[in-house]
Amino acid sequence: MERPRHQGMVKNTYMRWRLPLVCLLWEVAMIVLFGVFVRFSPEADAHWEEEKREMNLTSDIENDFYFRYPSFQDVHVMIFVGFGFLMTFLKRYGFGAVGFNFLLAAFGIQWALLMQGWFHSFKSGKILIGVENLINADFCVGSVCIAFGAILGKTSPIQLLVMTLFQVTLFAVNEYILLNLLHVKDAGGSMTIHTFGAYFGLTVTRILYRPNLEQSKDKQGSVYHSDLFAMIGTLYLWMYWPSFNSAISEHGDAQHRAAINTYCSLAACVLTTVAFSSMLQKKGKLDMVHIQNATLAGGVAVGTSAEMMLTPYGSLIVGFICGIVSTVGYVYLTPFLESRLHIQDTCGIHNLHALPGLIGGIVGAITAAAATEEVYGKEGFIKAFDFTGAYQTRTPSVQGGFQAAGIMVSLLIAFAGGAFVGAILKLPIWGDAAAENCFEDDVYWEVPEDEESEVYHMHNPDKPASP
Amino acid sequence: MERPRHQGMVKNTYMRWRLPLVCLLWEVAMIVLFGVFVRFSPEADAHWEEEKREMNLTSDIENDFYFRYPSFQDVHVMIFVGFGFLMTFLKRYGFGAVGFNFLLAAFGIQWALLMQGWFHSFKSGKILIGVENLINADFCVGSVCIAFGAILGKTSPIQLLVMTLFQVTLFAVNEYILLNLLHVKDAGGSMTIHTFGAYFGLTVTRILYRPNLEQSKDKQGSVYHSDLFAMIGTLYLWMYWPSFNSAISEHGDAQHRAAINTYCSLAACVLTTVAFSSMLQKKGKLDMVHIQNATLAGGVAVGTSAEMMLTPYGSLIVGFICGIVSTVGYVYLTPFLESRLHIQDTCGIHNLHALPGLIGGIVGAITAAAATEEVYGKEGFIKAFDFTGAYQTRTPSVQGGFQAAGIMVSLLIAFAGGAFVGAILKLPIWGDAAAENCFEDDVYWEVPEDEESEVYHMHNPDKPASP
Amino acid sequence: MERPRHQGMVKNTYMRWRLPLVCLLWEVAMIVLFGVFVRFSPEADAHWEEEKREMNLTSDIENDFYFRYPSFQDVHVMIFVGFGFLMTFLKRYGFGAVGFNFLLAAFGIQWALLMQGWFHSFKSGKILIGVENLINADFCVGSVCIAFGAILGKTSPIQLLVMTLFQVTLFAVNEYILLNLLHVKDAGGSMTIHTFGAYFGLTVTRILYRPNLEQSKDKQGSVYHSDLFAMIGTLYLWMYWPSFNSAISEHGDAQHRAAINTYCSLAACVLTTVAFSSMLQKKGKLDMVHIQNATLAGGVAVGTSAEMMLTPYGSLIVGFICGIVSTVGYVYLTPFLESRLHIQDTCGIHNLHALPGLIGGIVGAITAAAATEEVYGKEGFIKAFDFTGAYQTRTPSVQGGFQAAGIMVSLLIAFAGGAFVGAILKLPIWGDAAAENCFEDDVYWEVPEDEESEVYHMHNPDKPASP
Repeated sequence: MERPRHQGMVKNTYMRWRLPLVCLLWEVAMIVLFGVFVRFSPEADAHWEEEKREMNLTSDIENDFYFRYPSFQDVHVMIFVGFGFLMTFLKRYGFGAVGFNFLLAAFGIQWALLMQGWFHSFKSGKILIGVENLINADFCVGSVCIAFGAILGKTSPIQLLVMTLFQVTLFAVNEYILLNLLHVKDAGGSMTIHTFGAYFGLTVTRILYRPNLEQSKDKQGSVYHSDLFAMIGTLYLWMYWPSFNSAISEHGDAQHRAAINTYCSLAACVLTTVAFSSMLQKKGKLDMVHIQNATLAGGVAVGTSAEMMLTPYGSLIVGFICGIVSTVGYVYLTPFLESRLHIQDTCGIHNLHALPGLIGGIVGAITAAAATEEVYGKEGFIKAFDFTGAYQTRTPSVQGGFQAAGIMVSLLIAFAGGAFVGAILKLPIWGDAAAENCFEDDVYWEVPEDEESEVYHMHNPDKPASP
Repeated sequence: MERPRHQGMVKNTYMRWRLPLVCLLWEVAMIVLFGVFVRFSPEADAHWEEEKREMNLTSDIENDFYFRYPSFQDVHVMIFVGFGFLMTFLKRYGFGAVGFNFLLAAFGIQWALLMQGWFHSFKSGKILIGVENLINADFCVGSVCIAFGAILGKTSPIQLLVMTLFQVTLFAVNEYILLNLLHVKDAGGSMTIHTFGAYFGLTVTRILYRPNLEQSKDKQGSVYHSDLFAMIGTLYLWMYWPSFNSAISEHGDAQHRAAINTYCSLAACVLTTVAFSSMLQKKGKLDMVHIQNATLAGGVAVGTSAEMMLTPYGSLIVGFICGIVSTVGYVYLTPFLESRLHIQDTCGIHNLHALPGLIGGIVGAITAAAATEEVYGKEGFIKAFDFTGAYQTRTPSVQGGFQAAGIMVSLLIAFAGGAFVGAILKLPIWGDAAAENCFEDDVYWEVPEDEESEVYHMHNPDKPASP
Repeated sequence: MERPRHQGMVKNTYMRWRLPLVCLLWEVAMIVLFGVFVRFSPEADAHWEEEKREMNLTSDIENDFYFRYPSFQDVHVMIFVGFGFLMTFLKRYGFGAVGFNFLLAAFGIQWALLMQGWFHSFKSGKILIGVENLINADFCVGSVCIAFGAILGKTSPIQLLVMTLFQVTLFAVNEYILLNLLHVKDAGGSMTIHTFGAYFGLTVTRILYRPNLEQSKDKQGSVYHSDLFAMIGTLYLWMYWPSFNSAISEHGDAQHRAAINTYCSLAACVLTTVAFSSMLQKKGKLDMVHIQNATLAGGVAVGTSAEMMLTPYGSLIVGFICGIVSTVGYVYLTPFLESRLHIQDTCGIHNLHALPGLIGGIVGAITAAAATEEVYGKEGFIKAFDFTGAYQTRTPSVQGGFQAAGIMVSLLIAFAGGAFVGAILKLPIWGDAAAENCFEDDVYWEVPEDEESEVYHMHNPDKPASP
């Protein structure tokens, strides 16, 4: 049932031994490393009864599980259904979008549990994991899903796994520098997840530049149903983003506030996206690409500041601006990046994650710099920015400066790391497809021969029909 | 890639300046109003530590966020994915269904936060918002999504935004009269959301009656895949309805009970829907329209009484009846309404929301009137109906009377408001499509030219093929 | 719009009176039984304020609702969207997959509330239900959804309802023997749900063996879009499985731990599934059937042990093995079972539920037998296995033995019950379709005549085109 034209030309995409080998060896490595290092945190360990006594907790409901598990599940849906289905918009790359996203995320969360664990949850030689670690692992993988968006349709599953390995590592390093060394706040990850993930992915796709990609131009578009599948991804990202930005905030008011700010920012973003989508098109019609993507920019852009006292109207302003920036980016910047800078960005992550991520970092820096004891209350002020211990004397404006430094560090590591990983992925051993076979599932997947594709062949007489 | 036949005839649907202008101006208005009025509630404010002390709370878990956030997210999914995808059943209106629902809801929740805030959360000149406000805003917008179902495919996005503006306003007024003046219970909104929303929408569609709508008859049906997309909407509404009806109930037993009652009612409703769907069709086959819609009537119909001691078997009875009423409505009433009363109800909201909403109001009134201290316990009785302060002496039967009055008020405001708003929407300035272009996405959307539509053209030789 | 060829041959599938009669009578029976037996548990009853005082609870947040409701909703999604959409992979059986799953589950949860209630929640003549009962009812129905997978496309809705009635009954009996008589732990149901459900379903499909099923071979495959719909089911099952396995575990550490173990097992499972899917296919391409199903085996296989101290690396190992076993099963075992043992297993539940369920039971037995006071802590040890009262003196190794006995009992009841129910379903009164009409929605559903099927006809000149 194979389309014959592929059999001669894409021999190098043969995955039968390479892909299984990578998957099995790496999974064995995970098992060994987990065996050596990973144990349950006290709140997930059977010794919890003793822990409860020691911590003077009167009820099981004080277990962190009940503070964070609902948000964890929402984040989990965003990573697997949100990102996975958002990328199904391509007419013949739905399996790759959902399936490869599934694969890289499943591997990535394991490696992230280790990498982040060594940096943040390492006690007496063991990584102790609880629900917050699961959320952080999902977050880390979120940055890989973002980068995947730039190279969607142009890479082999092995390349994606290799990229995941390196990107998760770099993510953890960057996150450590920001959160621990610079003592920066970034609960929803405008800097650590979006700015880093997007510029990393854009650098990788630049290095992997394919000059003949227009050979698969006919497959880069959507069809009616694939656009609806993509809307499933969009809506789950949009609806659960308040959980994303609040998932690892401090218990109580901070989680509550982060959810509200994100809700507001996203709502405003939809209206300006619709406005500019219609305005920038000669016939005034709405473009599904904008609705699927730019409506989410508001969530990205309050990733740093959502848990701060950004206030609901501040959130509306951020969402307002980002809907515009992102939509304008899709119309003018993406073609420019491709033709002039040779950055082929399949999903337009520059508009959805890179620019809004930068804005989010800046908004966070400003919001932090503008913080006062009056607005936060004395205790709230210290708690919000964790101005304790070595950071007791840090002032808001200094914090703002460090926040800004966090953006720079994220960009640096993204560019340098992306260039390095891109160079590795350029090696001719990973089995990526020829330009004319990009954006086509049947390179790596058994694709059912269905009526639609028969019709397709019928209308494309230059392509041989299936037997 | 435009189908040429449209270019001449639907010039008036040109949205390029009108839609952006409305979106941008209204969003600016939201920002200004939020700036003047909206602040965080004490539980979302950085002063929470002080609040906690004052309220004698020992743990962050007592923050309302943890009581309601999971339910909020479920409700959020119902509004955006539930209603959005439920309406994708039309073969060529999926973008409009999901996309316009997204747009109107994103605007509506902002305006609802303000309108409901002024009525219910206004303190010292500020609206203080927390997670319960987000839920209520989603609820309010739910009534607009319902009304959208009646006019689906026949209106421009500007008309939808105008309708949202007015309907949210009227919703808030009606809700205030019911909850504050009549002191009525309606946690799941049988009256305030469903009865009001549905009769409002039916009145609007009556005013907007299109005598030549059979010109687009061929587009009013579904295709195989669009029916499956719609089932995504159906199932999310069905599964999360227990969260909907319990989301703003009192902490503890009331939330718990509301979820159980709704679960039971919905389960029973599925069986009678299937029974009557098969029974009323000559060939005994099931009709997807019924499965997609009438199975949900049970959730609507316990919207008022779910938090009361309706009991599980009481809920089964309500669900049993509503599955029948709703399915019979789809088979006999919808055609009657269209041919005799000129009410063109695209999604059949009369059967899914109007009738079950009325039943729900009545069931609520009866359940309230039948309440006794024996069944509720002394404290539970007072707590369930909030018989405190000015209402200390109200008896169950009086409460039942007020509940019934609530239905009447909701109907009155729905009819009067719907007529008023319908008249506004009839003005020839909003860019709605001609009858023959109704139920067709490519009036307002860039629609990908895909294989299916090529086939479509091939089979419809009277329509010119795309170039 | 009916395809004429059906009208003569499938007269026996006429449902008009049989299906409504069964639905209505059974629902009336539910109402009567609920009326006699079912009431609210103290935590959902309006007397909760008094209960709180008696139990010395200081806050409403201690209501079980807040410990379990988010997990309940995740489980609910798994049953209705997860199982429902997983089965939409067939090209022309999407309505039946989602719709019949909806029907049987809606009936099943009611009957399960009663059956399980009589065994576990029966106090002074009443079944007292709360959120945990809802979860357990969903669990019970999960085993029916599993069995449905084996007979998908080959049975009438009445047969499914009859099977549900009996299977729920047998499930409750089996569960009672395991949990109460053998005092076995099985929070995520490797034995009670998966092993029982799968072998029950496999026995039923064996009894219902159809020798001429290859007549509908052309309809047993998927099309491109139906595979994407199925991925919605897969992902929701995969993402929410941590909630499934932790939903009814003890408050606190046990719920927390069960979620983490399941998360780990599922992640590992994806990698070995991908590895073996590619390895076992000559061209090295991935097969959607494996990705849709085998990736879930890891969740099944930690169903018994997830709440124990399996540890994260133990979970990875279990997931690693099950991804392999399940994928190998799809490639080699399913064809073998069909050709040699005459077991026609539409969805391959033998690979997804039966084998991983058995492994899960065994892993549970081993994990229990290996438990020590050192690992669990003194209190944790007693709490984890409920070694109190009559079971005070039970040792881990004895517990391991009882766990193993639980597997045997589940298998026995599954085989015997499946044979009995299969024999009943073989009676020629239930209206199942002829072999050539299997896997075809339009036997029981009004199916829209869409473009795709027109094309289909065009390409299949032996079938008459629709008028």
